[in-house]
Amino acid sequence: MQVKVSGSNNYLEKNNIVCFFEPQSVAVVGTLRESYFGSHAIIKNLLEVGFMGKIYPIDVSCSEFMGLKVHASLKNISEKIDLVLAIVNSSMISNLMIECVEKDVKAIIIFSNSFLESDEGKFILQKEVLEIAKRSGIRVIGPNTAGIINTGNSFISHPYIMGHGKIKLGGISLCGQNRMISPHTYPFADFHYGISKVCDLGNKSDVDESDILEYLENDSSTKVIAMHIENIRDGKRFLKIARRVTYKKPVLVLKPGRTNEQVFDAACKQAGIILLEKFSELFEIPKFFAFQPLPKGNQFGIISYTGMGAALAADEGAKYNLSIAKLSPDTIAKLNVISPGLCKSVVDLGPLMALKNDYISVYPEILKVVLEDDNIDCLFHILWAAPMGPFLEDYIKIFRNLRSVSQKPVVIWVYGPRQPNVYDLTCNLEDLGFPVFSALETAIKAIGLAYQYAIWKGRKP
Amino acid sequence: MQVKVSGSNNYLEKNNIVCFFEPQSVAVVGTLRESYFGSHAIIKNLLEVGFMGKIYPIDVSCSEFMGLKVHASLKNISEKIDLVLAIVNSSMISNLMIECVEKDVKAIIIFSNSFLESDEGKFILQKEVLEIAKRSGIRVIGPNTAGIINTGNSFISHPYIMGHGKIKLGGISLCGQNRMISPHTYPFADFHYGISKVCDLGNKSDVDESDILEYLENDSSTKVIAMHIENIRDGKRFLKIARRVTYKKPVLVLKPGRTNEQVFDAACKQAGIILLEKFSELFEIPKFFAFQPLPKGNQFGIISYTGMGAALAADEGAKYNLSIAKLSPDTIAKLNVISPGLCKSVVDLGPLMALKNDYISVYPEILKVVLEDDNIDCLFHILWAAPMGPFLEDYIKIFRNLRSVSQKPVVIWVYGPRQPNVYDLTCNLEDLGFPVFSALETAIKAIGLAYQYAIWKGRKP
Repeated sequence: MQVKVSGSNNYLEKNNIVCFFEPQSVAVVGTLRESYFGSHAIIKNLLEVGFMGKIYPIDVSCSEFMGLKVHASLKNISEKIDLVLAIVNSSMISNLMIECVEKDVKAIIIFSNSFLESDEGKFILQKEVLEIAKRSGIRVIGPNTAGIINTGNSFISHPYIMGHGKIKLGGISLCGQNRMISPHTYPFADFHYGISKVCDLGNKSDVDESDILEYLENDSSTKVIAMHIENIRDGKRFLKIARRVTYKKPVLVLKPGRTNEQVFDAACKQAGIILLEKFSELFEIPKFFAFQPLPKGNQFGIISYTGMGAALAADEGAKYNLSIAKLSPDTIAKLNVISPGLCKSVVDLGPLMALKNDYISVYPEILKVVLEDDNIDCLFHILWAAPMGPFLEDYIKIFRNLRSVSQKPVVIWVYGPRQPNVYDLTCNLEDLGFPVFSALETAIKAIGLAYQYAIWKGRKP
Repeated sequence: MQVKVSGSNNYLEKNNIVCFFEPQSVAVVGTLRESYFGSHAIIKNLLEVGFMGKIYPIDVSCSEFMGLKVHASLKNISEKIDLVLAIVNSSMISNLMIECVEKDVKAIIIFSNSFLESDEGKFILQKEVLEIAKRSGIRVIGPNTAGIINTGNSFISHPYIMGHGKIKLGGISLCGQNRMISPHTYPFADFHYGISKVCDLGNKSDVDESDILEYLENDSSTKVIAMHIENIRDGKRFLKIARRVTYKKPVLVLKPGRTNEQVFDAACKQAGIILLEKFSELFEIPKFFAFQPLPKGNQFGIISYTGMGAALAADEGAKYNLSIAKLSPDTIAKLNVISPGLCKSVVDLGPLMALKNDYISVYPEILKVVLEDDNIDCLFHILWAAPMGPFLEDYIKIFRNLRSVSQKPVVIWVYGPRQPNVYDLTCNLEDLGFPVFSALETAIKAIGLAYQYAIWKGRKP
């Protein structure tokens, strides 16, 4: 096959991943038949979230779709195309690639599956795609991907109908390789923390985890990087990039199949990568890093509505060399002026709540006194979502002011008798920038991983 | 102090814990002043949940409360009292105990704190209470407890106002010792699985974890026992009872401070106790045991909407000696008749859903074929709560019929793009008796613990 190469020859030299995240114009190639998956869904999603770039549907079945002019082929579009989104039969992909070359397209996302994962003939097709890409400088994400999200420009190239809610803008970027990191899987729109980018790499015929890591390294709106990696294409390159990136921003990695991967684990740790263990942690632990400063030491204080929690927190903390802080005599004295017996091993608000009807009025002072104690590097706050009283509003007011009181990290676990109250308080606290964890132990683990990362960062030149 | 002992002398000989769970008449002693905690709350809760026994408020401040006659003292009640619920100042507790003896009360729950946990003088008070109890045969739960729940007779002696929803009846009984196991902490009323008993032991001045374990052993409505134990009063007695109980029903134990407790862990395992690690597991793992049969072997199958999950499930399963089952050639052939390529390493419904518009019509057959494979001991089902289509109703219909298809255990993890859909599907499946876990790894852990328990049980005579 002869291909006229009009692209530059800088493949792999230049990390031109930016086209995938910041296209001004996209062509969506594939049948527009209504379905839960496909071109139809991509365009519907793009329009719903309010993508501001140009959208060019490409299909032969109709001339107009959702108010957009439909073209029969890429060739028929006179304007420049930054990115092609393709859901086409694998047998048509080579022709589409050639059209991309001719149109000087710089990037293509191939959503279709049935390439590498099916049979030999199709494997050849994937190879062919890659050869054209290499020769022409076109970068390819996929095949078999759920696409890209960039909340900054409302670009959501997601091929599943999902009734998109607005995803909150923020500093967390996620990367995966099996569709399980995208918004038909996890309810990004229901999260109360912000997302910068999401990228599903699919089969990784071309663009891989190293490319994305390098892109996110220099993406100023990405504060934290969380990756789900099943296999690493080029371990040496990945670790080399990671060693550089982890010094600038935290990189969290979940890699399944780690049972026999002590070598990989050790290399990751040396590179400053924060290793996760569970799928749900990908969506929870980054919140600490996005919202909170790193702890300066391993001593955490506990303010709680119950004496409970200390023992479980101590158990979990020990895994990360964390200890429950011993408050200074000065702090204990101050707390006992607020209410006698307030502070034993941990600060227990329960008895105070029973003793003082207006206890909420002294609560900000308690937070302040504890956070000012030099023995405390981090606060673990266990909150009771009580079913009565104006507590939610009180909490919102108090936590809105908390950042001016202290620059130490605060993590929260909320419990309570009714799920809706717990949920309301959780959402409101996260909207204010305080990470709330689904389990007491996950909150402590987040502190522990942040502390380990702080040590690693301190060690770097 | 002289006490007339009218009770029998069978203290500790007879496990008369039944009075705490099945009282026909209760006296509630303490000020009826409106507060989020106290007698007022207990009586309000009892009336709200529809307790069918007699309720006698005891207070000097009024003569009528919520339609109930208020007495000034226990002595003034002519009817028999099975159980006294006391929220009184610790200095008044000895007098109350003496009144209990005179009234031939068999059991008292002391909710008040400020006993053991405060100062020496009050420690003496607690000792005094216990001496009276021992001489008279009165059993004591507390002090510093959040009380007892028995869903069977709507008896909820819970001293916090919480706007009680109805707790579903079922086979799980929970026991703790620090108020963190009671319905002001965890939203029992929002759970979609059933509860039999809940007991918070508080300071354990008298009734302890061994007493409760022995009571639950013979409680026919308790199918699974889950305990949060901070310290064990009499380890030898506890393990002796546990060795007997674990053969009849599963006993799950969370014990904090286990970092240095290898000896305790080993003893528990020998006694057939299932050890938990996280607080949330107390409320999740028992669901498997309450809803599902035990797996007969260590091979689990996966049906999923995504190839993902297999690697993470394999990692987690390895901790419990579980493996992903290799389906028989016969099963694979049958599945490929339903849809070509349906079964690779795991059964992936995703492509099928894209290929077949009526895929839901073949879905019950897929479940049946997989569950009938002799290589499968348990099914791990990953479900996608899709945002469109009549899927929820389809699932409900299919899962309602599933039990007649197979007697093998099925555990479920649900994911999806919108939290409300995930929640709806989760609730409906649990209402049908299928445990849904909050995380993929927790689902696998539940299978793993059930498999270990099955091995242990098989080993017993």
